[in-house]
Amino acid sequence: MKIVVDAMGGDHAPQAVVAGVIEALKEFDVHIVLVGVQEQVEAELARYSYDKTRVEIAHAPEVVGMEEHATVAIRKKRASSISVGIDILKELCGDAFISAGNTGAVVAASSFILGMLKGVERPAIGLVIPTLQKFSFLIDVGANTNPKPEHLLHSALMARVYVREVLGVANPSVGLLNIGEEATKGGDFVKDIHKLMEERVTNFIGNVEANEVFTGRCDCIICDGFVGNVVIKVSEGLMESAGALLRREIKKSPLAMTGAVLMKSRLEHIKKYADYTEYGGAPLLGVNGIVMISHGRSSPKAIKNAIRATIREVDHNIIAAMASELSK
Amino acid sequence: MKIVVDAMGGDHAPQAVVAGVIEALKEFDVHIVLVGVQEQVEAELARYSYDKTRVEIAHAPEVVGMEEHATVAIRKKRASSISVGIDILKELCGDAFISAGNTGAVVAASSFILGMLKGVERPAIGLVIPTLQKFSFLIDVGANTNPKPEHLLHSALMARVYVREVLGVANPSVGLLNIGEEATKGGDFVKDIHKLMEERVTNFIGNVEANEVFTGRCDCIICDGFVGNVVIKVSEGLMESAGALLRREIKKSPLAMTGAVLMKSRLEHIKKYADYTEYGGAPLLGVNGIVMISHGRSSPKAIKNAIRATIREVDHNIIAAMASELSK
Repeated sequence: MKIVVDAMGGDHAPQAVVAGVIEALKEFDVHIVLVGVQEQVEAELARYSYDKTRVEIAHAPEVVGMEEHATVAIRKKRASSISVGIDILKELCGDAFISAGNTGAVVAASSFILGMLKGVERPAIGLVIPTLQKFSFLIDVGANTNPKPEHLLHSALMARVYVREVLGVANPSVGLLNIGEEATKGGDFVKDIHKLMEERVTNFIGNVEANEVFTGRCDCIICDGFVGNVVIKVSEGLMESAGALLRREIKKSPLAMTGAVLMKSRLEHIKKYADYTEYGGAPLLGVNGIVMISHGRSSPKAIKNAIRATIREVDHNIIAAMASELSK
Repeated sequence: MKIVVDAMGGDHAPQAVVAGVIEALKEFDVHIVLVGVQEQVEAELARYSYDKTRVEIAHAPEVVGMEEHATVAIRKKRASSISVGIDILKELCGDAFISAGNTGAVVAASSFILGMLKGVERPAIGLVIPTLQKFSFLIDVGANTNPKPEHLLHSALMARVYVREVLGVANPSVGLLNIGEEATKGGDFVKDIHKLMEERVTNFIGNVEANEVFTGRCDCIICDGFVGNVVIKVSEGLMESAGALLRREIKKSPLAMTGAVLMKSRLEHIKKYADYTEYGGAPLLGVNGIVMISHGRSSPKAIKNAIRATIREVDHNIIAAMASELSK
């Protein structure tokens, strides 16, 4: 199995990416293609000892910046690590592509180069989120902000396959993120989606409200890319603000500081539990190939775990499984 | 000043509502009209000693349930506490109306009975949210889930007036909730709103991402009712899940339990800080009268604080101030 990794993607590239790849080589039986500016990647690799027969470098002289306009960058920089990496996938010289780079650019290049699965019009980004019970899979967290109802139906069908094959849930339940439980709730758009899902999605449990996203009540939570992006960002921001507030309050009292020290190991356990880097990246579904988007701030551990997630996708032949589900 | 209060609204009505009114009578120079089933309200009032010249009861034999279909309920139950209460406002026999009842019914009855402010087509619900720095005002959190871009413009104009007059911020900044900072981000809908706001809203600072909702970066955060409802519900749910996870982890370790005890007073301080009941209710803006929607789970304190908030609205003549802003 050969995983193609964008060496230049993310805020800490290429250091964090190469470090993550080195970790992955130790843990998984996998070959890696690192795509990026050859001398930079070589210099970084030179800091480690590893099995050189399992790593190759694909030179890509251009880099897409994290803040660049996605479609413009992809059009102009055909020799970027993102485009070159996805080309390798397209030519069947790799089984999956991982990038912590510009999300919009990865989405655009994947759609353009790999094309879409039959019956799918637009890609969607899924995200495994930790909940009180287990995990839930939230989709779309930002690929498609102007969807038609059918696009969310396709997300639901693909999500069920992903959760079944990659997360190992036998018959995943599917909920539609809405602002009330009743089928009549929400604007015209979600009402249309509700109707479609009722007709077409197995184990559809109806509307799920946003206060249930983290309870683990359902396996797949479906929403448009705007709403999904708001959900993950407001959650990120709230945890950061709550943490800052907690630290501010604790500092006001020596007693509370002592208390915090005593709680430390448990707090760290929670931190680890809630840490997105434990689950790797966010799969881009709907394109005709396995593409994983990692957080721009990805640590080596996040990259390693993203590699693990793609290995599961390859092992379970996720693309064929989704294509089959979509053609039903 | 006379505040009209729906005695039958909320999960703990009429007990919690009447208890809150009794508290308010002690703290504020105000008269209260309690609207509800006369004998139930009288029975509840009989448990307290208070200045009887400052409280009257308006009999409303019908009650709208929390889960009833809003518009149907309002059409069928013309003698509900919600409709009767808003009628009193309409007849100028009261200065503001507060209800912890069925939100949709309050929105529908207010719009129907009071009508809209000139130039406004749809109402919006605002919410004062605690942030790291101070407060921010999020609008709309659920009144209008099928808005046109103009509706969000009107929300922005009204929000600025509310935050200036009621929260005392001199020149409130306004941000548009979006999934990126650049003006080109988001779907067509938010792009249209961005353009409108740029032209018409004073101190418009552009897009604000959802991870900044709780940082206090801007005073007024504008979004559609679907997205705003998701923001508050996902925040509520996340804090509940994080709390449950924390308790679960702490119970695993006697050391951590001791730590939690030492931190107790600081944790309670945070809880109080983040407690929505401290800020009363959520003002319904756009209708031609002062209407405040309280949380269905409102405690007596929440009701008392909602009364305080409406007193400020009346004192600052918020309706005239918004009408003037909208006519510019």
